[in-house]
Amino acid sequence: MLGYSRRDFLSAVGVSGGAGALFATMGALGLAPSAEAAAKGAFDPPQPSDFSLTGRSARKVVILGAGMAGLATAYELGKAGYDCTILEALDRIGGRNWTIRGGDRVTELDGSTQVARFRDGVYLNAGPARLAQWMVTVDYCRELGVDLEVFTNANAQAYIYHQGMTAPVRWRTAKADVYGYVAELLSRATDAGALDAALTAQDKERLIAFLSGFGAVGNRASGFRYGGTSRRGYSVDPGAGEQAGTVLGPVPSLSEVLASGVGQRFSFELGYDQAMLMFQPVGGMDAIPKALAARIGRQRILLRSEVTGITDLADGVEVEYRDRHGRTRKVRADLCVAAMPPHLLARTPHNLGAEVQAALATPTVSSAGKIGLEYRRRWWEVDEGIYGGITSTDLDLAGIWYPSYGYGGPRGLVVGYYNFGAQADAYAALDHAGRERRAVGQGMLIHGAKYRDELASSVSVAWRKQPHIEGAWVGWPSRQGAYQLLNRPAGHVYFAGDWLSHMIAWQSGALESARKVVTELHQRVLSSG
Amino acid sequence: MLGYSRRDFLSAVGVSGGAGALFATMGALGLAPSAEAAAKGAFDPPQPSDFSLTGRSARKVVILGAGMAGLATAYELGKAGYDCTILEALDRIGGRNWTIRGGDRVTELDGSTQVARFRDGVYLNAGPARLAQWMVTVDYCRELGVDLEVFTNANAQAYIYHQGMTAPVRWRTAKADVYGYVAELLSRATDAGALDAALTAQDKERLIAFLSGFGAVGNRASGFRYGGTSRRGYSVDPGAGEQAGTVLGPVPSLSEVLASGVGQRFSFELGYDQAMLMFQPVGGMDAIPKALAARIGRQRILLRSEVTGITDLADGVEVEYRDRHGRTRKVRADLCVAAMPPHLLARTPHNLGAEVQAALATPTVSSAGKIGLEYRRRWWEVDEGIYGGITSTDLDLAGIWYPSYGYGGPRGLVVGYYNFGAQADAYAALDHAGRERRAVGQGMLIHGAKYRDELASSVSVAWRKQPHIEGAWVGWPSRQGAYQLLNRPAGHVYFAGDWLSHMIAWQSGALESARKVVTELHQRVLSSG
Repeated sequence: MLGYSRRDFLSAVGVSGGAGALFATMGALGLAPSAEAAAKGAFDPPQPSDFSLTGRSARKVVILGAGMAGLATAYELGKAGYDCTILEALDRIGGRNWTIRGGDRVTELDGSTQVARFRDGVYLNAGPARLAQWMVTVDYCRELGVDLEVFTNANAQAYIYHQGMTAPVRWRTAKADVYGYVAELLSRATDAGALDAALTAQDKERLIAFLSGFGAVGNRASGFRYGGTSRRGYSVDPGAGEQAGTVLGPVPSLSEVLASGVGQRFSFELGYDQAMLMFQPVGGMDAIPKALAARIGRQRILLRSEVTGITDLADGVEVEYRDRHGRTRKVRADLCVAAMPPHLLARTPHNLGAEVQAALATPTVSSAGKIGLEYRRRWWEVDEGIYGGITSTDLDLAGIWYPSYGYGGPRGLVVGYYNFGAQADAYAALDHAGRERRAVGQGMLIHGAKYRDELASSVSVAWRKQPHIEGAWVGWPSRQGAYQLLNRPAGHVYFAGDWLSHMIAWQSGALESARKVVTELHQRVLSSG
Repeated sequence: MLGYSRRDFLSAVGVSGGAGALFATMGALGLAPSAEAAAKGAFDPPQPSDFSLTGRSARKVVILGAGMAGLATAYELGKAGYDCTILEALDRIGGRNWTIRGGDRVTELDGSTQVARFRDGVYLNAGPARLAQWMVTVDYCRELGVDLEVFTNANAQAYIYHQGMTAPVRWRTAKADVYGYVAELLSRATDAGALDAALTAQDKERLIAFLSGFGAVGNRASGFRYGGTSRRGYSVDPGAGEQAGTVLGPVPSLSEVLASGVGQRFSFELGYDQAMLMFQPVGGMDAIPKALAARIGRQRILLRSEVTGITDLADGVEVEYRDRHGRTRKVRADLCVAAMPPHLLARTPHNLGAEVQAALATPTVSSAGKIGLEYRRRWWEVDEGIYGGITSTDLDLAGIWYPSYGYGGPRGLVVGYYNFGAQADAYAALDHAGRERRAVGQGMLIHGAKYRDELASSVSVAWRKQPHIEGAWVGWPSRQGAYQLLNRPAGHVYFAGDWLSHMIAWQSGALESARKVVTELHQRVLSSG
């Protein structure tokens, strides 16, 4: 059965009655009411009754790392009464889920420290900043009572800027032109018979009708000409009385549009993980770890407690750590969930064997960085009519993000760069002042002098330089071997994190990994002698 | 100068310095910092100092109608101290800007009455529901301190449903398939030389490179084949461990995709007025009229005061009205702004002449209707992963709107239809129970039995049946003649409303019209003897 073939059966199951029959066909396509649950895979959290039914009891579990995977592990195991302790090297929970506010310190590996000077209500989500609707993270927000609001990943009013352009172009203008010329060309080729081998006469007619609307092009007599439309925007908006509006012009030629490369940007928003709508917790991404920690119990989370050794024992596990006073301590547990980055685990002494050690050292670490630029005025809204969204560039700042909160308010925070790989490394190599200078200098190409003149404060994060994290995310050369090995327990030690999922660099990967480990660990406990 | 031609001048004005030079070129394209203000046209609100400078004084103005145009007129004139009185026939302000909450009554012309039973926090914006970023309405929200949040006009996760489909299709899936086949066809035609008359060799290369990403199609060797991608969505999402995810399939054929007509939907979101991002006031659209009324002073707004006569005098104007007690009263003023619908003005006795009367009767009235369906559970979020947005159909319900507020909460309100013209008339002809039955029956084709079974309450509005409004908006046969006449004062009577703008059916049209009339009226007062 095909996705959406047109069939003449509404006469049988149409509006007047048989909706049930039609609806019955949907399950096979993953569109039935239970589609979301099915797509995510079932997860049954451990429950106290699981033990009362089996006569077994909850165990003690030590969890390494209070990032999203570690917190979710403790939260889910806690539902059944597991006695969980989380060791966290940093002085805060959340890991890469880090919301920076005024007064917060950003210290890098070399000891250099910034102190954020943001005003109340202004924040930077330094790590993850967006959630797709289908991700399990959204389900956790619902369960935890974390309020969501839209995060704007795509905005017709934001710009595309490529070096060599005489001016940035709004997304809406770029789309109007690219779609317009695509429609013109394909209509012409279709009408001229160039695609007759692939298209029936009816296909051709339907394709040309679609393209007419899609590109807003002229009719056959005009050669399906694209000549620009109001979709480009206006230099003078339609208004009252005689103000009909002046459509933005002139329209660049086909060759110019192709040479500009703007169309390369369009695929981003088609991705399953990036398509709008996206969401963010109201008030900062760290609302999620905070809500998890509140359910877990703060007393179970030991901050500034750095793991220095993992010893798998015959009947459990012993973890050595340095506590907040610098003293070496040990915690003994039945089971362990190591929810730290693999490259840091690879530096931690353990007795899990050479194969595990080699596996931990296998993934490659990726770089990413961000700068938050706080402005005294929301000029992107007032002057440019941009309420959230991302300006995409081929500069090494990659993108400029306008805030998806506080619309119409006094101040606001723009993400001046969010970049990866070599671009992030180039920024990371500078001190904070240098990063700010570079980001502002590049941003001025798009926004002019106010981008420098109205700046109030800034904070930058280079993820490879963050103590006890040392990277943005990791990549695997393959999902065979090492990846598979670490997705199984090593003795009494399980591994969890986005790095053990097919959703690397997403919180949902960490959460799904935690759920998987919780399920397996709980099954083991329930089936143990 | 062209919109975004690639020119090799970054060597001169590039990242390292000359941003100013580059930026200087932007003004001509309407992209400079002042672009928003310029596009909207300058508006200088009247100020008290205008009078102190001229020795003249503010006048008494009677405003007919407390819709958006009337309220904005009183608000702007009030800034300079004009003595404004608004006569409003209804028992509420806002006109078509109407937010219905639990306890509110919806009475139609025939006397039939619904009482909304919505729970606290649930509301229906029965009239306008969305604001584009560039619209002056957003500026008013900023000025008035009305908080905004995203209104979702387009969501990849919502559906397209056309009669005859075996199942609704998510927007993301439809786009993946349409863009995929478009890319395949155009790549093939281009590669085969069918467009050589229009494309240089470099154009062809760039076009094929763009299409490769745009459609996620195969390479030349594969014939640029579209075979479906993860952009379609997944039947099993990528998850932890071995769960790589299962891409939704099977992929319909090119002929099936064209026959489905899904592509016809794509142009909507490209419109200058409908492109995302869109916004809504937090808590209901009526936050705007409420904020205006608070600034104007509620005592200046006479509710349940129906205009029964307009008499232009040699030195002013006299308006007769029926007050809330049924008594006929008169108000005398220097000037009048008639901000009522034209078809109601055309039924109001006046002495403004036959030409004005003919002009008022010229526009044709349009129909629109909405039903708000309150559900006991947000099944569209929990079961289907749809957080806001619109499912588009070719059923006469037109579209189903999921709420852009209250995500993750307990209850929620779905707009079960928002339709126009004959579709709206068909629903309007039914009583409320009949409208609900029809809307629910059709919605079940998309959402199944829960669409009926989990319904808590509903309210419907048929705009042609709303007393003292009697229509959704109007259309002009041309912008010559009658439209131009009414955009000028008739004696001491000015006309204002979205119907006198190029933004009909948008609040911004009413607001821009009010600004125009305020400017002209104030100029007249300042230059009068």
